[in-house]
Amino acid sequence: MTTPTMLSLIESKRDGGTHDAPQLRFLANGAADGSLPDYQLAAWLMAVVCRGMTEAETADLTVAMAESGSVLDLSALPGPVVDKHSTGGVGDKTSLVVAPLAAATGLTVAKMSGRGLGHTGGTLDKLESIPGLSVDLSVADFRRQAAEIGLVIAGQTDDLAPADRVLYALRDVTGTVPSLPLIAASIMSKKIAAGAAAIVLDVKYGAGAFMPTRDAARALAETMVALGERADRRVVAVLSAMDEPLGRAVGNALEVAEAVACVRGEGPSDLTELCVKIAGWMHVAAGKAQDPDAVRPALQAAITDGSALEKLRAMVVAQGGDGAVVDDPAAVLPHAPHIAPLPAPHDGRLARLDARAVGDAAVALGAGRRHKGERVDAAVGVVLAAKVGDAITRGEPLAWLHARSADAAEAAGRIVLAGVALTAE
Amino acid sequence: MTTPTMLSLIESKRDGGTHDAPQLRFLANGAADGSLPDYQLAAWLMAVVCRGMTEAETADLTVAMAESGSVLDLSALPGPVVDKHSTGGVGDKTSLVVAPLAAATGLTVAKMSGRGLGHTGGTLDKLESIPGLSVDLSVADFRRQAAEIGLVIAGQTDDLAPADRVLYALRDVTGTVPSLPLIAASIMSKKIAAGAAAIVLDVKYGAGAFMPTRDAARALAETMVALGERADRRVVAVLSAMDEPLGRAVGNALEVAEAVACVRGEGPSDLTELCVKIAGWMHVAAGKAQDPDAVRPALQAAITDGSALEKLRAMVVAQGGDGAVVDDPAAVLPHAPHIAPLPAPHDGRLARLDARAVGDAAVALGAGRRHKGERVDAAVGVVLAAKVGDAITRGEPLAWLHARSADAAEAAGRIVLAGVALTAE
Repeated sequence: MTTPTMLSLIESKRDGGTHDAPQLRFLANGAADGSLPDYQLAAWLMAVVCRGMTEAETADLTVAMAESGSVLDLSALPGPVVDKHSTGGVGDKTSLVVAPLAAATGLTVAKMSGRGLGHTGGTLDKLESIPGLSVDLSVADFRRQAAEIGLVIAGQTDDLAPADRVLYALRDVTGTVPSLPLIAASIMSKKIAAGAAAIVLDVKYGAGAFMPTRDAARALAETMVALGERADRRVVAVLSAMDEPLGRAVGNALEVAEAVACVRGEGPSDLTELCVKIAGWMHVAAGKAQDPDAVRPALQAAITDGSALEKLRAMVVAQGGDGAVVDDPAAVLPHAPHIAPLPAPHDGRLARLDARAVGDAAVALGAGRRHKGERVDAAVGVVLAAKVGDAITRGEPLAWLHARSADAAEAAGRIVLAGVALTAE
Repeated sequence: MTTPTMLSLIESKRDGGTHDAPQLRFLANGAADGSLPDYQLAAWLMAVVCRGMTEAETADLTVAMAESGSVLDLSALPGPVVDKHSTGGVGDKTSLVVAPLAAATGLTVAKMSGRGLGHTGGTLDKLESIPGLSVDLSVADFRRQAAEIGLVIAGQTDDLAPADRVLYALRDVTGTVPSLPLIAASIMSKKIAAGAAAIVLDVKYGAGAFMPTRDAARALAETMVALGERADRRVVAVLSAMDEPLGRAVGNALEVAEAVACVRGEGPSDLTELCVKIAGWMHVAAGKAQDPDAVRPALQAAITDGSALEKLRAMVVAQGGDGAVVDDPAAVLPHAPHIAPLPAPHDGRLARLDARAVGDAAVALGAGRRHKGERVDAAVGVVLAAKVGDAITRGEPLAWLHARSADAAEAAGRIVLAGVALTAE
């Protein structure tokens, strides 16, 4: 076999050709070790966006990216190890609820998460708003905590799918994000490298999601399920709408507080419903149930009897955080100095509350990052006072803006309002 | 008007959109001054290869690249200033013949040329095989020589279409060469920046050219003529076949010797015929003749009476070279130490003599460069002893290999033979 050259791979894809597994392994390893220049990778990525990849190519790229670093083996852990991944939404704190619910009902949740970028938040940023908590665990600590308490959420280690890290960063700045094969391979390479045997994917669609339509989300979900199965993972995908934000809180500490409320049985109904659904499917993926509804009573019991809350506390404490956050979040989490209402401009019914606008407002307040590497402000964000369908009177708050200053609150309010439609009844 | 961002241009082209002139100016200037990263330029180039550009976009890009550096104004020179450009072929020494022919018949030829890359040679490399001759002229010297003797061939100055230099180098390594709009804009941006009011393009097609077919060459020619006319240049395109090498010599000093012979009226017929044709069209482009055939007697006279040879001598001397090269090339030019025949493997008629194979053999001998910046060997190359259609006997030489060593000659011979077809009569 001759060694492929990057130029020949670019030319082949440009002309509508297909790559085989050794070629994609050469590409992934070259991206990971820096031996392939980024301009060649960028040209190849655009050729893929324009010409597409077959299912076999996508699968081979996924495995090649997963194996460009070390692949965790979690098979020695007690109980079925289940991972959960969301394609990203606004106010999406489901991992913080679902993970303790699943752990309290007999599954082992060993999950590596990401940080927020753009209008969607990231689980790691949210967790770090808990004083003392660290997400930078060694592989040994990650494994030990999963074995001891059945629940760990940590940052991706540097050698987790390094090819994907390089390609993902390049896609962000070269207009090569919107490609179903590249999106699917990116997500699944990390999930496969992270070692769980069963994976539940929460694929979001709508105004606040990367996938605009349910059909697009379904196509992505089907591709990812197929990729997982080729790599001997049991994968279930759940499609969920993301037109308005999930729950009411958008912002790191604000979302942790809402997640704690949800684990205590006091969360907003849309968030609670989605979390119970996903946790149910985690049992199905793990082979512990045939039907997610069959798990519902056990999940409700874990909320009611406090066992899910104790799992969450155990995880927070194991990772160095203040466990009291699960008893009284407001006493433990940071607060923003200015909390200003965003008044409704007239009477009406809330017909649209654009998740993207709320996400952008939260980023403007400092809760998210525009560029990789920016620091986020744990305290700031938006708390919705109304959800789509609610009737509202002029002057009543549509939302509360948690800000560093009155000016920042006002600016963020304008961004939210641009995403609001109030219709006369 | 908002400032465009490179990311938005990439995304627009990726999605089949079109760019306006300010956007392409932003891109060309950003490429020239290094403010746009090469990975973004590479992604944009691939999007152009996949999605194409309209005629208006191609014209705007051409002008933007031409004006990314300084544009020469040669209007003050005496006589009509005519440039000539070949899209590149094997054994293509036409510039060395055509330029003195045109200058000896009343035109001013002020030409900036390039270096060879891959299997095609470059005029600068050929000229530099003449001892002492320099192609690195300042703009002032370039202009002065054109005014004084009506003939100058120099290297492109650093500020000639710098955007094209950046994009051309990137295209070479990112699989984005084969795009008609990009090829046309690259050539014409340099020709427009180089200042001639009239331009004759020699667009080659066939086995040894970048354009495989006559139709592809015609499409490129039509695009370039339209681009030139939009920039107020009078442009004529000549289509010429490049299946076997032009003339018999391939290699730098070998081609200079053949060009001198041609200017003396002792050149191979295919080369002489093409040179007279192109020189005739230069008179048409300059507005000095209606019909290239009308100029033929004057061109023949310039060969016969030695005036073309004296123009060539004057140019060589003005640029520091040894003028005796036009009297006795063999006495002045460097020689290779090994000159070996390539015997015909059997009797037959030469049905095919692939220009690409001969070009590759010359590169293998050291006459060309595989990578930008490599040094070339002036002395080595291939001299054909037979052309397509010739009958040949087993053991008779098909070609002579001018090499540094017997091993190098043997290796090059094998490359030539792979491109040879001898048919039984």
